[in-house]
Amino acid sequence: MDWILHNDEFIREEELNISKEDRGYQFGDGIYEVIRVYEGNLFTAEEHIDRFYESAEKIKVIIPYTKDVFHKLMYDLVEMNEIENGQVYVQLTRGAYTRQHQFPSDTAPVLIAYPKKLERPLELMETGVHAKFIEDIRWLRCDIKSLNLLGNILAKQEAYEAGCFEAILHRGEVVTEGSSSNMYGLKNGVLYTHPASNLILNGITRRVILNLCADLGIEVQELAFTKTQALEMDEFFMSSTTTEVMPIVQIDGQQIGEGVPGELTRKLQEAFEANLKLTVKS
Amino acid sequence: MDWILHNDEFIREEELNISKEDRGYQFGDGIYEVIRVYEGNLFTAEEHIDRFYESAEKIKVIIPYTKDVFHKLMYDLVEMNEIENGQVYVQLTRGAYTRQHQFPSDTAPVLIAYPKKLERPLELMETGVHAKFIEDIRWLRCDIKSLNLLGNILAKQEAYEAGCFEAILHRGEVVTEGSSSNMYGLKNGVLYTHPASNLILNGITRRVILNLCADLGIEVQELAFTKTQALEMDEFFMSSTTTEVMPIVQIDGQQIGEGVPGELTRKLQEAFEANLKLTVKS
Repeated sequence: MDWILHNDEFIREEELNISKEDRGYQFGDGIYEVIRVYEGNLFTAEEHIDRFYESAEKIKVIIPYTKDVFHKLMYDLVEMNEIENGQVYVQLTRGAYTRQHQFPSDTAPVLIAYPKKLERPLELMETGVHAKFIEDIRWLRCDIKSLNLLGNILAKQEAYEAGCFEAILHRGEVVTEGSSSNMYGLKNGVLYTHPASNLILNGITRRVILNLCADLGIEVQELAFTKTQALEMDEFFMSSTTTEVMPIVQIDGQQIGEGVPGELTRKLQEAFEANLKLTVKS
Repeated sequence: MDWILHNDEFIREEELNISKEDRGYQFGDGIYEVIRVYEGNLFTAEEHIDRFYESAEKIKVIIPYTKDVFHKLMYDLVEMNEIENGQVYVQLTRGAYTRQHQFPSDTAPVLIAYPKKLERPLELMETGVHAKFIEDIRWLRCDIKSLNLLGNILAKQEAYEAGCFEAILHRGEVVTEGSSSNMYGLKNGVLYTHPASNLILNGITRRVILNLCADLGIEVQELAFTKTQALEMDEFFMSSTTTEVMPIVQIDGQQIGEGVPGELTRKLQEAFEANLKLTVKS
């Protein structure tokens, strides 16, 4: 039986009591993070924790713990549940209060975190996946990692129903990101990805990848590209905490490049893995 | 102690058990309605129930009850809790499942409904309220009454902090609706309101008002208007299930018309009240 973190207490599932008036449940009034665990270590934990605090600030919820305490709680959770490879899901809502749109003046936020075991998607990373273009109908603060994910899940579902692994979202002609990932194209050795604006979530894996590009001497252009340009890329891939560097070899049934994971995508996968092992060892 | 409707069972609060993996809690993957109760009767219940089923269809959740059964459950809830004047809040989520974006294939939706006592805001309806223009940053399916309400609550909060009762949302220059209401301007005897597109929620009170306009011989133009045009209206008001016909006498500190509820707004309030009494009696 797993331990769940509820505020700063570790409890069992059956002890957890979520109010029907938790603003997370009625408004999606909260934020979250998913942190990867490799060999018992939280990967890029500080970056995730920083973003968690940033998201909280953007929706004006105060996290009642210092980052240090929060970091330790995450580690305790992993250890208590004996997670070797997996992830921690953590969310914070504004708390429970009689339903009203404006913020309640004196309500304690509610934090819930729990881990799960998860292996790396090595097979898919080898073959690559298919993706589908779907109109990006989300709000204009996609930089906040909030619990308002209906636009994301409807897109993901549409992609799944078309036999695809991920939705490539676009506003008009411009590609923004995936339904739960960032998107990248490579053309003539240059990596293109949407700039970190209000229209995308600035992924932690995205930041790792951009750093790896610098190490590898791959030129990066944080520039939005169109659907047409996407289809004409030499290589294409997505990234996220759980899918790492995931090649996309087909979009809307159209082959990208040679229809197999590209050379630079492979290099980035290798560099990501080396980086991961380095981090785990340290 | 109040009764809560959980799926098709009436239970006590302490018996309610919401999963941490309820998709309503993690994604806002659900829909809701607020139905007004006047003198023990549900007001425009059929319209609310129809919209509830429409919202469910739009996000592809199946409500496991016929509309008739659903209607009866709502009435039982009101009676068991002895609500004379108040409201019923009802929400349905896609159910609980290990967190993933795509829909789980075999999960029962979760319905929760509960009432509260509430009086009509007669005093504010007499004096009118102040409102504030706030940029509409929400997604492009505002026609769905979903649990993704972060854009709405952030706007409402900003309005409250400015001492206002409601936020008037605008996309660019165009006024859409309120953070939890529809918006109307009257100019030279003609009522203007944003058409029922994907950019607004087609309020049930809005529909009642448009019908009343027909009865009263007030010309209606379902046309979007700009912020500038809003400020130049002779009269301005908002509507919602709980605020009925609520005059707005000031926007961003600027007086609308004479700075008091206008003549046609008054007529609509009277007609709404007469309609309400008629409905309650029937």
